[in-house]
Amino acid sequence: MREFLIGIDGGGTSCRAAVADAEGRILGYGKSGAANIMTAPDTALANIEKAARAAFLNAGLSEDLVNSARAYLGLAGNNVEDTVAYISARLPFAESTIESDGFIALQGALGDGDGAVAILGTGSIFIARCDTSVHYIGGWGYHIGDLGSGARLGQMALVESLLAYDLISPPSPMTTALLGEFNNEPPKMVGFSQRAKPGDFGRYAPYVFDYASQGDQTANRILTLSAGWVDAALDRVSDLTNGGRLCLLGGLATLYPPYLAERHRERLVVPAADALTGAIALAKSTYGSSMERSR
Amino acid sequence: MREFLIGIDGGGTSCRAAVADAEGRILGYGKSGAANIMTAPDTALANIEKAARAAFLNAGLSEDLVNSARAYLGLAGNNVEDTVAYISARLPFAESTIESDGFIALQGALGDGDGAVAILGTGSIFIARCDTSVHYIGGWGYHIGDLGSGARLGQMALVESLLAYDLISPPSPMTTALLGEFNNEPPKMVGFSQRAKPGDFGRYAPYVFDYASQGDQTANRILTLSAGWVDAALDRVSDLTNGGRLCLLGGLATLYPPYLAERHRERLVVPAADALTGAIALAKSTYGSSMERSR
Repeated sequence: MREFLIGIDGGGTSCRAAVADAEGRILGYGKSGAANIMTAPDTALANIEKAARAAFLNAGLSEDLVNSARAYLGLAGNNVEDTVAYISARLPFAESTIESDGFIALQGALGDGDGAVAILGTGSIFIARCDTSVHYIGGWGYHIGDLGSGARLGQMALVESLLAYDLISPPSPMTTALLGEFNNEPPKMVGFSQRAKPGDFGRYAPYVFDYASQGDQTANRILTLSAGWVDAALDRVSDLTNGGRLCLLGGLATLYPPYLAERHRERLVVPAADALTGAIALAKSTYGSSMERSR
Repeated sequence: MREFLIGIDGGGTSCRAAVADAEGRILGYGKSGAANIMTAPDTALANIEKAARAAFLNAGLSEDLVNSARAYLGLAGNNVEDTVAYISARLPFAESTIESDGFIALQGALGDGDGAVAILGTGSIFIARCDTSVHYIGGWGYHIGDLGSGARLGQMALVESLLAYDLISPPSPMTTALLGEFNNEPPKMVGFSQRAKPGDFGRYAPYVFDYASQGDQTANRILTLSAGWVDAALDRVSDLTNGGRLCLLGGLATLYPPYLAERHRERLVVPAADALTGAIALAKSTYGSSMERSR
């Protein structure tokens, strides 16, 4: 009987899966909806299985093979112990390992060996690997963390717009444009802010980079502050990895480099592969020897 | 028939009332529960009437006099038009005027004449009066405003605690103590932050002032930043009032002065009276002549 590996990359907006043979060659991909194991664990379980079955079908294989496959899952929210136990007991695979979505991203980006990734998207987290130890820096969420993240950048842009409206700070093209989006009525912007999730704030982050590149002083001030926070986290990461390779991932990865300190810019490498490739590589190293035995 | 004036100070935690004679001499006080006209208008209406009736009883008068009294109400959330129309149509008084809770506080603190108040509590708002015009600066709420407020100070202290935990910033006695409050388990602090309302963050603001006075560098950095925002808002207020009198109100009023710029410190005056006294003074000036006529 052929043995298969499954890699899963599950997050708050979608769940992706890859199926590979015992040698780690990817045969097919699948995708489904949100896999937020903290807020909706049963939906997450359903979407993990759905993505895995789709990957088998995509590979021209029977979807029933999910039950005999060995899976390596990178899931957002994996740091909540009770949740992981609940999920782990209900997965459809023969064997499963749950790690963070960030860790499979690191494996994909850097392959084996030391180094670090900074994941700069709606949130922000920094992951460093040195020998066999893995360190997570930041990633505490929007309310009291995620400095430098898209959500924080967007929120800061709205704050600055209100300061400009009140004539506390000088207006800039960006603050004028943002106020215009809310019909120049601050109560509308305030209403938005009360309902907004991090991703809603994050949608304004690209504005900040756009306007900064056009010389907008307020946008540049926000980015200087945010890049300073990212630089500080990267200093810590650099300590942990002896100044080794660094890879930026996430939606803001291509936008941040010009604003980072030279000491970090010169360490940047492009990602070797994506998170699913990382998950399959980890599945192979995790289950490789047991698969040898079972053949 | 004797004529009576009612002053109301209604906010999210309680509603207070004063009853006065036609000359504005306060005869009694009353208090009841929350009067948040935005989130619970009917409860607010009930508590406004309850506080007013209690004030008449406290003055040794019949509580049925509420229906013939003329009222001046300072209510949080008065800037939402629909809400004010709803409340206004249902108040039990013979005549009513609704203004912001901040405006009656300004009237109480400064009496007649030009000047400004900075209300620094869980939130922050700045109100300037020059001749007959009144300007509101800030006060946009926790999510994208209220810079320098207690809620923001508390939130910043928790952010710094996580930066210290991650060794991104050096620890300080304050960050160590705050982490200790959450059993040195960041996920507990994160869980708190996800559930916290502005007032919950605000409970940590006094820590920042306490530790800053003991030389804590992180606490002092937070206060320097926050006081800078308050100074910037006060610069705008100073423009509007030609550098006139300035009064700090709210829970942080006595804590902030040492951190403010000298140009603002030298304009500070102590409040002449409280918000209810302001509401009664405004009731007298609003209804005074009509009361003369009706006698």
